[in-house]
Amino acid sequence: MSAGKVYFVGAGPGAPDLLTIRAADVLRQADIVFHDALVHPDTVALASKAERVAVGKRCGRHSTAQRFINKRLIDAARKVRTVVRLKGGDPMLFGRAQEEIAALQAADIEYEVVPGVTAALAASAELGISLTQRGRARSVVFLTPRVGEGEKPNEWARTAASADTVVIYMGAGQAGMIANALLAQGMPAATPVVVVENATLPDSRRLKLSLHDLPCVAALGMTGPALIMLGEVYREGVIQHADDVPAARRA
Amino acid sequence: MSAGKVYFVGAGPGAPDLLTIRAADVLRQADIVFHDALVHPDTVALASKAERVAVGKRCGRHSTAQRFINKRLIDAARKVRTVVRLKGGDPMLFGRAQEEIAALQAADIEYEVVPGVTAALAASAELGISLTQRGRARSVVFLTPRVGEGEKPNEWARTAASADTVVIYMGAGQAGMIANALLAQGMPAATPVVVVENATLPDSRRLKLSLHDLPCVAALGMTGPALIMLGEVYREGVIQHADDVPAARRA
Repeated sequence: MSAGKVYFVGAGPGAPDLLTIRAADVLRQADIVFHDALVHPDTVALASKAERVAVGKRCGRHSTAQRFINKRLIDAARKVRTVVRLKGGDPMLFGRAQEEIAALQAADIEYEVVPGVTAALAASAELGISLTQRGRARSVVFLTPRVGEGEKPNEWARTAASADTVVIYMGAGQAGMIANALLAQGMPAATPVVVVENATLPDSRRLKLSLHDLPCVAALGMTGPALIMLGEVYREGVIQHADDVPAARRA
Repeated sequence: MSAGKVYFVGAGPGAPDLLTIRAADVLRQADIVFHDALVHPDTVALASKAERVAVGKRCGRHSTAQRFINKRLIDAARKVRTVVRLKGGDPMLFGRAQEEIAALQAADIEYEVVPGVTAALAASAELGISLTQRGRARSVVFLTPRVGEGEKPNEWARTAASADTVVIYMGAGQAGMIANALLAQGMPAATPVVVVENATLPDSRRLKLSLHDLPCVAALGMTGPALIMLGEVYREGVIQHADDVPAARRA
């Protein structure tokens, strides 16, 4: 029987002031925080009285590490009152919160989820371009192109091709494969694409190109989290950072 | 020539503490705030030194009202320093920010967008159910079933049928039409559905049912903003509020 509670907290897209007020309050009360490696240090530092543990896993791989995180959450909730699992973006989108929640439920430990601003919305804010627009885009799909065991390899591309606006998370390292799969689904080579790396952070980069040129993104050496955004809403009006122009010309 | 700047600020899903820290800071500095009718009064009240103007439009209808809002934003930016356009949820998803941004650009007025937590993420947090789950759902589409001039009536349903998880915004009043369109696309009648009204607010209601029974939602008289969420991720584990059980049984 445990008196502790685990809070899954969305850290937002990067900039520390894009955290919610509720998330900041929970962090201030935390006794221990398990945070993703990519969460901004100033956000983690809000948990001033907490033990802070970086759980290095990135992009959801390494199931052994995942089982270890599950166990640590349970152990912590049996010892202290407020345990925080701090995740980049929003906990309910492209994280593995469900596995952690299931482990807590099995151990009869209370939990609560505090939502966050997801990267696609923050990138859209920076671009000044709505994901949906009257008469132009009334659906937006968020997806990741990873293929799991037993899944059809191009199912994600079929989904992408049927939506008006597409945001691909965790895909910049596979830009060539993504472009090929989308072209094979009949998406036009001239489809406008915007790639945004490190949205909301000082070293944010954005690049406007076409689906045809998307494979060039691999050559840019993006190391931060990046989104690939596609659709007619990106056809005009994207203001590039000055330092992106040479890269765009190369593409 | 104007010295004023317009901030498009996402008010988040409903609960005032799900506002971002940046949004709260901007509101405190605001000279005038134009807010959607549905934004929580405590959120609007953060703009303590501002003139506060409710712009009653709901769900993006009434283009005359829209033109009037565009004009008021421009007029305000020519008079004061900090103008806030406060929108429910996130400004870049299912709002008409793009039309307002275009009007400001045409008038050479500076703007900035502050993202927010969108209702789908807040509802997922309350349900404790991730929109994406390893091996079960790797895409989620957000859409609205409204059909504009010149658009194919069931295009949105085709998009919905091809994604793993579907979140329909502004659709509860058309639940019967939505169910028929999705069934016609081959979505199984047993597809699990969760309807969430007023996510994150004290009077939040949630209802679990199947696509077959979705038309019953119309009988519940939902007057607050509601989401219809569909997909295999909702097959189990949704904890209902006690007062929803009779409604679920009726369905």
